[in-house]
Amino acid sequence: MPPPTHNSPGVIETDALIVGAGPIGLFQVFQLGLLGIRAHVVDALPHAGGQCIELYPDKAIYDIPALPSCTGQELTERLLAQSAPFAPTFHWGQEVSALQQNTDGRWAVGTRNGPHFVARNVFIAAGVGAFQARSLSLDGLQQFAGTQLLHRLAEPARHQGQRVVIVGGNEAALEAAIALVAARAQQVLLVHRRDVFQAEPGTIAQVQALREAGHLHFIAGQVTGFEATAGRLQQVHITHGDAQNTTVPLDQLLVCLGLSPKLGPLTGWGLALERKQVPVNPATFETCLPGVYAVGDINTYPGKRKLIVSGLHEATLAAYAAAERLRGAPVQLQYTSASQHLQRLLGVADEATTPAPAI
Amino acid sequence: MPPPTHNSPGVIETDALIVGAGPIGLFQVFQLGLLGIRAHVVDALPHAGGQCIELYPDKAIYDIPALPSCTGQELTERLLAQSAPFAPTFHWGQEVSALQQNTDGRWAVGTRNGPHFVARNVFIAAGVGAFQARSLSLDGLQQFAGTQLLHRLAEPARHQGQRVVIVGGNEAALEAAIALVAARAQQVLLVHRRDVFQAEPGTIAQVQALREAGHLHFIAGQVTGFEATAGRLQQVHITHGDAQNTTVPLDQLLVCLGLSPKLGPLTGWGLALERKQVPVNPATFETCLPGVYAVGDINTYPGKRKLIVSGLHEATLAAYAAAERLRGAPVQLQYTSASQHLQRLLGVADEATTPAPAI
Repeated sequence: MPPPTHNSPGVIETDALIVGAGPIGLFQVFQLGLLGIRAHVVDALPHAGGQCIELYPDKAIYDIPALPSCTGQELTERLLAQSAPFAPTFHWGQEVSALQQNTDGRWAVGTRNGPHFVARNVFIAAGVGAFQARSLSLDGLQQFAGTQLLHRLAEPARHQGQRVVIVGGNEAALEAAIALVAARAQQVLLVHRRDVFQAEPGTIAQVQALREAGHLHFIAGQVTGFEATAGRLQQVHITHGDAQNTTVPLDQLLVCLGLSPKLGPLTGWGLALERKQVPVNPATFETCLPGVYAVGDINTYPGKRKLIVSGLHEATLAAYAAAERLRGAPVQLQYTSASQHLQRLLGVADEATTPAPAI
Repeated sequence: MPPPTHNSPGVIETDALIVGAGPIGLFQVFQLGLLGIRAHVVDALPHAGGQCIELYPDKAIYDIPALPSCTGQELTERLLAQSAPFAPTFHWGQEVSALQQNTDGRWAVGTRNGPHFVARNVFIAAGVGAFQARSLSLDGLQQFAGTQLLHRLAEPARHQGQRVVIVGGNEAALEAAIALVAARAQQVLLVHRRDVFQAEPGTIAQVQALREAGHLHFIAGQVTGFEATAGRLQQVHITHGDAQNTTVPLDQLLVCLGLSPKLGPLTGWGLALERKQVPVNPATFETCLPGVYAVGDINTYPGKRKLIVSGLHEATLAAYAAAERLRGAPVQLQYTSASQHLQRLLGVADEATTPAPAI
């Protein structure tokens, strides 16, 4: 499922910028595409799917209309396929930063490490926010982020001969532990609040075998403090269930506590948030900022229910509102089952057209 | 695709009566079912699907979310399958008649030939109206409806030895002509405004062969009048393209001009229609009548687009509004991917539940 990627920094001018590549962001691409509008899509994750992939990729969803059962993974793949004719440009692993309106009415939106956008319309399809790695909330620990503090094991071999403490009990934590033993780290210590793991049975069995063989150590407890000297993280304090403390020297701290969504910079966009949600006009799904729309779980309006089926409708009406804003005139509805124009856009004109029979 | 049928007259008390078994009516069944509400469904057609089946059963639709391409037939089958766990009771071939509110606040709704309902909530998912056979607009002709004037050929054998005039150029008209020749009608005359037919090539070829063999006669023209004596239809006047008239004696007139939707009795329900559409509150999709909702193409509200994706959202919010009305309390959202209660209702609790792994 790797759609085209666009990672070059610079300034990109566009009619439509979509923040979030979850199901609603993907359907926003599709509905804009039917109206002749190409979109750029930014997502903090390295792939499409948003919550559907982060929270329940393999769990069945039963209330997508006309799909009696489908997983988050399948839903994502279907929506990617459906929007593919409109060739969106995806910017993966990018978080949007500040938003400000230019004097010409367009919206300038930055990203942390990627391009800056100047967009006529912005669609916030950010769900519950940008997914970010959960960290330990210990004062001063963040100074080691990217050096001695990691949230993802990218290159196990780099840790050969090192003393590594891994925090977490999920699949990522256990797989990292196994990989670090294989990469001949000097010492691998897994710390999790209890001796029960949320991972595949096979992974859990491997970890158990490494523990029994003495290659992997485990403490049921929490990292509650650390000591640093000379700008380096030297040791961490681990508090056990019995309120005892253990101090462990280390070279590397790997925190695998999953991802957690954060609205982050969106809270500073001037969107009149109500309980972390963006109020919108339910006729257009426009926010209080002209040309800025909010669709899916992030918005609120009278009667709102956080359901995918509602987000799909919201993205549809937001696309029409944006099209009318761009054209400065009403946009007539056309049906994909009947319109040759839409069928050409979708690349299905030939298969859909059957000549009328005649004697 | 024959779901369970319920045709016995009488009075049926129900929490939810749905008018229309098109895609939105079927999804209304599903969303009500998730909220624990069973529904009765009335449709003027003898089957599910509404416009999707009557207007474009085999045409591809490209804008159903996560279904890059599907026919009206397939969409209908998928929605029937999805709503099946909630075992709706369908009343086919029934048109609703008057609506009136009982003193206890419930709604009494009749049908022409079927049961009467007393419903706590009524969902109008009637699309563009009830599909009815198009007839000829000739004053006084309707008095022969059901006797000498038919709109569907039910039993060709009954017309053996008769003189039959068929009006129409569609598949139904041509198939009737072929069947009547085979049933040894004394004379079969097909009348259509021009010598071009909207039918399968094979059917057209059979008609052509019967014409060449002299078993079937054809006139390119229109039936513009009739003569009746002694309470019987005796002959029809056919006006040709060249403004000439032909008078044809007959025993039976079969009019096959397709179906046309009519709001019919709904216009008398007190729904404050605007251009044949029912205004609703977009937070609940309730009409001006408490407990009467309108969803899909029949409703209107600011921003309304007549799209299936919007109707699906509307049915969802209407279901929540009705559930809150029935319970007299707020209804919390539950997710089908996580709620064991919903999974039990759907009959998928076992397949969806995976025990948590543990060492």
